[in-house]
Amino acid sequence: MPDAETRPEPLYLEDLSTGMKFSGGSYAVTEEEIIAFAKQYDPQPFHCDPEAAKQTFFQGLAASGWHTAAITMRLLAEGAMPFGGGSIGLGAEVSWVRPVRPGEVLSVENEVMEIMPSRSKPHQAIVTLRTTTRNDKNQTVQIMTSKVLAFNRGHIPGALS
Amino acid sequence: MPDAETRPEPLYLEDLSTGMKFSGGSYAVTEEEIIAFAKQYDPQPFHCDPEAAKQTFFQGLAASGWHTAAITMRLLAEGAMPFGGGSIGLGAEVSWVRPVRPGEVLSVENEVMEIMPSRSKPHQAIVTLRTTTRNDKNQTVQIMTSKVLAFNRGHIPGALS
Repeated sequence: MPDAETRPEPLYLEDLSTGMKFSGGSYAVTEEEIIAFAKQYDPQPFHCDPEAAKQTFFQGLAASGWHTAAITMRLLAEGAMPFGGGSIGLGAEVSWVRPVRPGEVLSVENEVMEIMPSRSKPHQAIVTLRTTTRNDKNQTVQIMTSKVLAFNRGHIPGALS
Repeated sequence: MPDAETRPEPLYLEDLSTGMKFSGGSYAVTEEEIIAFAKQYDPQPFHCDPEAAKQTFFQGLAASGWHTAAITMRLLAEGAMPFGGGSIGLGAEVSWVRPVRPGEVLSVENEVMEIMPSRSKPHQAIVTLRTTTRNDKNQTVQIMTSKVLAFNRGHIPGALS
């Protein structure tokens, strides 16, 4: 887990407003990790065999889109989604704009698009976030719109209080 | 990669029609793997610390939604999306209906919802698929709608022919 020292102060529902942006951290994607992830979760030649990948649609090794999504989550959990109670996603829409290649360094920008208070649970809301993942050439590799839960301070379900 | 022997014959664009369904394979989710995935990609207490997870929203260890998505991809790549040229996703919308717990065994059902021929590339189409991931109690854990590329036989871009 991220160091408590480097992690930003958590924000609660009452701290959030539309248009707020968060970022932070970066993640270097190695060929070794692309292949290891793909062998476990997306075993296709263009994701796990650099030589065979040359004769595919991707014309070379490319990270699984699900790997890009997982790395994006890591960057969110490490600071780009500093929500009290954690990042609890209900769902997400992901577009893979361009493949991630070995050696790229990814970072994210995360923006609050909408805050929809719960009718039945007064201290809870569904927050819509737009998360753009870019490589170190500032090219967008993934765009994600997600719906996550946010809670008022002192009202995290399940938490000891 | 899956055994060539157990992998179904690939289907090409001309073989596909709306309403076709695919399934195949299962994946047992261990506590060890939930924690390993979470430590790398979603380092939050409810995904990587069984004891701390008890005092969270999830009231116990739960797999990261991105882990559920990655396992779904594995089941698709192993046979539930038997497309010639591979499973090349443009994007996906994922809903996490219920958390995946240690010990559950996941399987998928994958259905062709729509086939949209490309205007500019005559041998190519965007296929919309709906993939339902269930646990071994037949409870739906994830619903995904994805857009993937399909190609006519003999027209895989980048492939030696």
